[in-house]
Amino acid sequence: MKKIFLLLFLVVAGASAAQAQRSQIVKDTLRSNILGEGVPYNVYLPAGFNADSGQKYPVIYLLHGLYGMQEDWQERGRMKDVADLLAASGEIGPVVIIMPCAGHEDVHNVQNGYFNMPGRSYEDFFFQELLPQAEEKYHCIGDKAHRAVMGLSMGGGGSTVYCQRHPDMFSSCYAMSAWLDQEGERDYVGDKEKDKLYIVAKSVHDHSALEFVDKADEKTIQDLKSVAWFFDCGDDDYLLKLSVALHFSMMGKGIRNELRVRDGAHTWEYWHTALYQSLPFAWRNFGK
Amino acid sequence: MKKIFLLLFLVVAGASAAQAQRSQIVKDTLRSNILGEGVPYNVYLPAGFNADSGQKYPVIYLLHGLYGMQEDWQERGRMKDVADLLAASGEIGPVVIIMPCAGHEDVHNVQNGYFNMPGRSYEDFFFQELLPQAEEKYHCIGDKAHRAVMGLSMGGGGSTVYCQRHPDMFSSCYAMSAWLDQEGERDYVGDKEKDKLYIVAKSVHDHSALEFVDKADEKTIQDLKSVAWFFDCGDDDYLLKLSVALHFSMMGKGIRNELRVRDGAHTWEYWHTALYQSLPFAWRNFGK
Amino acid sequence: MKKIFLLLFLVVAGASAAQAQRSQIVKDTLRSNILGEGVPYNVYLPAGFNADSGQKYPVIYLLHGLYGMQEDWQERGRMKDVADLLAASGEIGPVVIIMPCAGHEDVHNVQNGYFNMPGRSYEDFFFQELLPQAEEKYHCIGDKAHRAVMGLSMGGGGSTVYCQRHPDMFSSCYAMSAWLDQEGERDYVGDKEKDKLYIVAKSVHDHSALEFVDKADEKTIQDLKSVAWFFDCGDDDYLLKLSVALHFSMMGKGIRNELRVRDGAHTWEYWHTALYQSLPFAWRNFGK
Amino acid sequence: MKKIFLLLFLVVAGASAAQAQRSQIVKDTLRSNILGEGVPYNVYLPAGFNADSGQKYPVIYLLHGLYGMQEDWQERGRMKDVADLLAASGEIGPVVIIMPCAGHEDVHNVQNGYFNMPGRSYEDFFFQELLPQAEEKYHCIGDKAHRAVMGLSMGGGGSTVYCQRHPDMFSSCYAMSAWLDQEGERDYVGDKEKDKLYIVAKSVHDHSALEFVDKADEKTIQDLKSVAWFFDCGDDDYLLKLSVALHFSMMGKGIRNELRVRDGAHTWEYWHTALYQSLPFAWRNFGK
Repeated sequence: MKKIFLLLFLVVAGASAAQAQRSQIVKDTLRSNILGEGVPYNVYLPAGFNADSGQKYPVIYLLHGLYGMQEDWQERGRMKDVADLLAASGEIGPVVIIMPCAGHEDVHNVQNGYFNMPGRSYEDFFFQELLPQAEEKYHCIGDKAHRAVMGLSMGGGGSTVYCQRHPDMFSSCYAMSAWLDQEGERDYVGDKEKDKLYIVAKSVHDHSALEFVDKADEKTIQDLKSVAWFFDCGDDDYLLKLSVALHFSMMGKGIRNELRVRDGAHTWEYWHTALYQSLPFAWRNFGK
Repeated sequence: MKKIFLLLFLVVAGASAAQAQRSQIVKDTLRSNILGEGVPYNVYLPAGFNADSGQKYPVIYLLHGLYGMQEDWQERGRMKDVADLLAASGEIGPVVIIMPCAGHEDVHNVQNGYFNMPGRSYEDFFFQELLPQAEEKYHCIGDKAHRAVMGLSMGGGGSTVYCQRHPDMFSSCYAMSAWLDQEGERDYVGDKEKDKLYIVAKSVHDHSALEFVDKADEKTIQDLKSVAWFFDCGDDDYLLKLSVALHFSMMGKGIRNELRVRDGAHTWEYWHTALYQSLPFAWRNFGK
Repeated sequence: MKKIFLLLFLVVAGASAAQAQRSQIVKDTLRSNILGEGVPYNVYLPAGFNADSGQKYPVIYLLHGLYGMQEDWQERGRMKDVADLLAASGEIGPVVIIMPCAGHEDVHNVQNGYFNMPGRSYEDFFFQELLPQAEEKYHCIGDKAHRAVMGLSMGGGGSTVYCQRHPDMFSSCYAMSAWLDQEGERDYVGDKEKDKLYIVAKSVHDHSALEFVDKADEKTIQDLKSVAWFFDCGDDDYLLKLSVALHFSMMGKGIRNELRVRDGAHTWEYWHTALYQSLPFAWRNFGK
Repeated sequence: MKKIFLLLFLVVAGASAAQAQRSQIVKDTLRSNILGEGVPYNVYLPAGFNADSGQKYPVIYLLHGLYGMQEDWQERGRMKDVADLLAASGEIGPVVIIMPCAGHEDVHNVQNGYFNMPGRSYEDFFFQELLPQAEEKYHCIGDKAHRAVMGLSMGGGGSTVYCQRHPDMFSSCYAMSAWLDQEGERDYVGDKEKDKLYIVAKSVHDHSALEFVDKADEKTIQDLKSVAWFFDCGDDDYLLKLSVALHFSMMGKGIRNELRVRDGAHTWEYWHTALYQSLPFAWRNFGK
């Protein structure tokens, strides 16, 4: 037999090497004076990213949840797969995506969360250290019109509260399965001064996104209207009531926001598929 | 301060333990006399699966691609996440999903593929050993009406050819980015007698799904009509021409089949999202 | 020039005539003793429907909203387009869809609604006359396992309340933008004894789906669990709070139900696209 | 009983009247010197459109198919419903959509089509009269970066060929179920000089989009790359082969284009749902 076969796969691999710079995830660490420690963060750099070109990019902050770390969105959420797909068909353009660490799986012993709390001023770190330094290092445009924030659960709450407290900093907020408030009657476990889970739950209570809207004055309401809001939570998610409550509360004050309840619970599959909506949402709200 | 916080997450974890048997992935190995080796395979068992209940289940074979193994569909394709989600909302019912190993990442040195080829009669193994033994062990109904096959790339080709050659065995076939034929002019690399990639490419050529339809007689065409067919391939996939060609060829002979071209290339993200269509497709074609 | 062109369109039209019986919408009227008038209703008959074959079909009741009539679902909702599409790809099987008239665009002067109210016992008509007579005439199977109900707004409320009060009659309920309750402080317009809009609003109040669940005893809760429930309402719909409230209320009593909040308001486009979910939902819950 | 009910619907209707200017469809006619007749066209004006504000808008040309007229996209395609929905959630911004008449249901006796043909120079009319006059009248920006074209069947072919012949005029092209070429062996009906269907079919043959790409020189290929291309055709559409062929032909010449094959045939439901992709596609390709 003389017939020989095209080994397509080798061809494809060869072609790949010749292509333009692919998207990549860079692992980095920022030495924080505020937190007194190195804070790891991952950065998605879009295809064609070129530090030497002088081009500057919009930026999205993508926040993990409780029990999470900076690797989560890629390892469990496969964020790169979705971002690459959307970029290839033009549903998003070239954008830098920053995924900082704000926690750990050992939630009782290692401090978590996006807010300032006793012994850990993460919000200060985020806005005074991470944001300016990372945006300079990774060539971000660095204004409200080209900065978005999104995240899941604790990171959905973080995204929301960051935009409430810094509406001049973000063009859009996309909160998935968001932990927007914390109330209840249940006893804490162990010594509440030391239980880091108690401490982060209290910080969520103290930064209630619901209360923030309830108490907002006219000036604050106007500021909140300058952000594009999106809440996305599964119908089997035990936190659904929070997203629904905030949606109605904001609508009641004339602050438009999108709400979606899709099929699902508090799972990575929900957040993975949320990226198909959240990334284009951030993109189309840039530059307005 | 007297206020104490509901530690929701502990509550949820506790509730989980009390729930019914969750879905799970079981790792198993079948000692094959035909292949002369142990063949590993993974099995997805649906929530509530109970070996002692006497209940029997429909079965789906979910096939990996070239360079792949039995772990792929879970580790890269997150098949359990999607199956659990679809089951929770009733888009599929309780079904056993079998993911056998037919390859390896070292494609030049370890034999691959779903067909019989020199030195390796995988198709014989599949139908004479794996299918009867696994279906008995995992309580499958075991008839055409309750058996489906689907897969990606080489596994999409495998699914198609299995249904062509054994139309009495499957109710439906869902082929993703399917490697349905192999032709070309390019020289093989190294010794073609030993290059396992050459051998598997030749086996795909020898089992061309396109040629099979071209040469099908009236009896064969009738048999093919007893299977529900679905071809799904990305618009940036280098194998798209094959799926399109087979679609038209089958339509030309009156063999109805679904074709979808979605956004994407030859990637895991494409196959992951394909599961949202493929699993319900298999499910709704059971029992007809 | 000798070249002549294939006039494809004529060919296609010719082929169509030769095809099997297409789906159709039949206009019918039922002389009601209970209402003392003829009640018009439209019936979607699936492709291949054959009154003489002895085959029997599952049935879906598809209910219009306030200001509506039996033509609405086809004229504004294009229900036939969606049903035909889903049937062609197997997402639904052959099913009869009945669209009865329960209203009029002149809501102040012509009586509306799905419930019994002073001067008009529509619910009695529905269950005692329409259901048995239409199901016999159009060859429906006629049991709970093969009967579903769905509708928009007032018809979403009607669907829900019918399933609450007759859980032994329906396998599933899909309520779109549902009018599930009516409360408030506002004065009626004109003479409340004569204002038909006042009367229908009062009937919705008196048949509150929310109150029904609040007051349900254990036996009733068990009965409600025998129906598959789906609530679908747009994030800009002024009735969204009702669907959300009922979802949580039912979940709180252990009655599983699907909730979706998609993009949109109280519009026909929302209901049109809802059919892509509602018809397969009804179909896959038949026969359980 | 003292309780009185909120007549929600009246409230809502009242609120509507107070809202900003809603989107609307304007019916207009352009007296064409080139065609020697008045050509009717419909225009979708976005919510808030204000002729006196000095604001200028991007424009989309939305083309009907054979047997069609300027009313089709609204009457059968419900284009306003989709455009309004997408605008409300920000998936498209404010855009003018022009729907010109290029045909009639009496295809044998009334001339059809988007190309110049014996007795009717529609392409000349389109670019020399309609485009400049309508864009000035309806306050369009009027450059390539803010002009898109899309259409169905004959209008999908028209969109494609317009962008091939005038790549400096359009930022994007979205062709649905496109009639991209016409060949064959079949005799015409009647007198071919007089049969308008023969004439339009011949014009499609003479303007073959496939042949255009086959014969494109390097300069033309570069020009074609300046347009964003999207082909969308159903798997049961008898014209699918044309879209697929053009996709591969263009990819082979390095002209990127999106291809989608969704479920469906040559139907209005397919084109209606295509708008959910086509309008955002046009929008996000404006201004590049």
